Amino acid sequence: MIRINENFLSLKESYLFIEIAKRIRAYKEQHPDKQLIRMGIGDVTLPLAPVVVEAMKKGCDEMADKETFKGYEDSGRGYEFLRKSISGYYKSFGVEVDFDEILISDGAKSDCGNIVDIFGIDNTVLITDPAYPVYVDSNTMSGRKIIYANSNEENGFAAMPDDSICSDLIYLCSPNNPTGSVYTKEQLKIWVDYALKHKAVIIFDAAYEAFITDKSLPRSIFEIDGAKDCAIEICSLSKTAGFTGTRCGYTVIPKGLNAYTRNGDAVNIFKIWCRRQGSKFNGVSYPVQCGAAAVFTEEGQKQTKEGINYYMNNAKLIAKTCDELNIKYTGGINSPYIWLKCPNNMGSWEFFDYLLNEIQVVGTPGEGFGPNGAGWFRLTAFGSKENTEEAMKRLKKLLKKD
Amino acid sequence: MIRINENFLSLKESYLFIEIAKRIRAYKEQHPDKQLIRMGIGDVTLPLAPVVVEAMKKGCDEMADKETFKGYEDSGRGYEFLRKSISGYYKSFGVEVDFDEILISDGAKSDCGNIVDIFGIDNTVLITDPAYPVYVDSNTMSGRKIIYANSNEENGFAAMPDDSICSDLIYLCSPNNPTGSVYTKEQLKIWVDYALKHKAVIIFDAAYEAFITDKSLPRSIFEIDGAKDCAIEICSLSKTAGFTGTRCGYTVIPKGLNAYTRNGDAVNIFKIWCRRQGSKFNGVSYPVQCGAAAVFTEEGQKQTKEGINYYMNNAKLIAKTCDELNIKYTGGINSPYIWLKCPNNMGSWEFFDYLLNEIQVVGTPGEGFGPNGAGWFRLTAFGSKENTEEAMKRLKKLLKKD
Repeated sequence: MIRINENFLSLKESYLFIEIAKRIRAYKEQHPDKQLIRMGIGDVTLPLAPVVVEAMKKGCDEMADKETFKGYEDSGRGYEFLRKSISGYYKSFGVEVDFDEILISDGAKSDCGNIVDIFGIDNTVLITDPAYPVYVDSNTMSGRKIIYANSNEENGFAAMPDDSICSDLIYLCSPNNPTGSVYTKEQLKIWVDYALKHKAVIIFDAAYEAFITDKSLPRSIFEIDGAKDCAIEICSLSKTAGFTGTRCGYTVIPKGLNAYTRNGDAVNIFKIWCRRQGSKFNGVSYPVQCGAAAVFTEEGQKQTKEGINYYMNNAKLIAKTCDELNIKYTGGINSPYIWLKCPNNMGSWEFFDYLLNEIQVVGTPGEGFGPNGAGWFRLTAFGSKENTEEAMKRLKKLLKKD
Repeated sequence: MIRINENFLSLKESYLFIEIAKRIRAYKEQHPDKQLIRMGIGDVTLPLAPVVVEAMKKGCDEMADKETFKGYEDSGRGYEFLRKSISGYYKSFGVEVDFDEILISDGAKSDCGNIVDIFGIDNTVLITDPAYPVYVDSNTMSGRKIIYANSNEENGFAAMPDDSICSDLIYLCSPNNPTGSVYTKEQLKIWVDYALKHKAVIIFDAAYEAFITDKSLPRSIFEIDGAKDCAIEICSLSKTAGFTGTRCGYTVIPKGLNAYTRNGDAVNIFKIWCRRQGSKFNGVSYPVQCGAAAVFTEEGQKQTKEGINYYMNNAKLIAKTCDELNIKYTGGINSPYIWLKCPNNMGSWEFFDYLLNEIQVVGTPGEGFGPNGAGWFRLTAFGSKENTEEAMKRLKKLLKKD
């Protein structure tokens, strides 16, 4: 008799987004004439940069010609032209990553979810609370013990390690989803030292690195001494270049990084991950890889940075509005997320309903990202300028009235 | 201390293809002037159909315009337009599959490798020997017990179940890789009855269904009564439409299919798989889905079938050559693979070296697919007409001389 992996039954249903959709549906049925402004979901709205589209179409044309057609990619790790572009991109902000340590994926979520396959289920996993749900879900599915590091108002939603607590696999995300907080180099150094001491591995989610403008803040964990001995970095073009529907990301696994057998023998992580991917993945679509490489050209950087600036102007406006309304928040600077404390001690869901009913603005209740999110709320800067302006106008009118 | 998943250490290294590459390299170093004809790897050589390229480029253009831009796909299961096309394709050969049971993937290998995540590790897995290595590797990685069903010369390399042996998860591939054998409806019915009796689930790999021309042979396991209560079908556009480098496939999970908890409670497989994918996958690139949908249009079917006919003419020529040389084989009809018995009782590797050294033709030693492949050899029809003709001319000259 076929048995299910019962760990799946321990997962929370994704009640958060189901519940959000349900409440929106109910509202719309009662108010079919009202236009909602969606600032909840983390999806982008600007189209792909022209240089990216051009490169993808050229890639398509190559697939139409026998001489330039591309079948299976030999390694499945990504074409060298793209990996070298990304290596050059790292170099542009002072980080040395060899192209041969970079693996191309169909998005950060896939690699972030699948990477746990290669680690023993007896590892203890340390995740910040609140956090991107994939970290918790992928480890729950495989039955690992999860412990939490508190991100909260006191530490500016930047959890730090407790040296007395052992853990083996650590998830960090900076700039953070959902809180928008960004670790300083000094803070990341403390995490790296903790990981080295415990022979732990850090999974560093750098999906929002392109939103960092403050040059003193680290955009990669590999800016920190020692990180190559304890960290894997996962990154994405989803927010950097609007690839949420185009699908491309990359993962950096330093060649010298090891995990251990129960006997304490070192096993090379890069090699084991390649073995995993060799059996369960067959590379990213060639035209998509062409488009991704275009992001890292001079023109591509110029065009995609225009998009990032556009979103960051929205973020600034949201942050400014919170300032004016005396609402506490993190993020908004160096991050497309604004994580705000619900005014008047409202609960996350209470504030959700309040914004939906009163001003038809949809955000995300913070407790969907973990218990520490209770009483907090996430707004994103990925909407249009017009909608963001309109939403902030309504928000000001609503809360000043109170 | 971070521990590795030690199941990975039980995997065979992919010695087969490493060893093949090594021998080719050594030969080329000694004979730099010789041109090799590669009939080993299962990659296609014809370009994408014009209608597919056109649709992909149109998809790229839509990504360039704010009004038509596509971000995250809501469900991540694939756009309805593509799932409905595939449902219609099934209907064209008489199979009823609802579009809502179809999930779009970035290729059969990903779904085939990842599907094991949702089943308990205490299931016993039944795999035919020889077989596509992903079945064995993905279950070895997660530590499941594997038993084998013999495919051999006596049963025409079409293994049948032994009713006295219990198993929970069964892998079948028809038309088979590597043996080219195709199950009849009667044979598949026996497998379905076996699965139903044991409450097992069949993972049916239909990646080569488009090569079936004999209308009496099943192209989908869902042509068999009862299959919707015991089978998942995984299919791919890689060979059907030359998508090896474009990356798109699909998986059919009947909505009523269940697995069980240790207490015997039924758990819906479709729902659990969607939960897995919701955390570890984010859908297939939009332009790729546009190209995939074009495959299933009238013009797309016409154009891609021309490609299949081209390859099948190669297959016929290889089969005819084997007939003339009195070499036993399976496949070649309704399949792009020819699985031949090495002449003069040669071993697989002996025959590999013989063809490489004497006539510069590269095939795949059968034992790379499992112990029952010893003494057998795989040739593929995916090369060019010219190369296939030249290789067969050389083969005839070589073996008639013996």
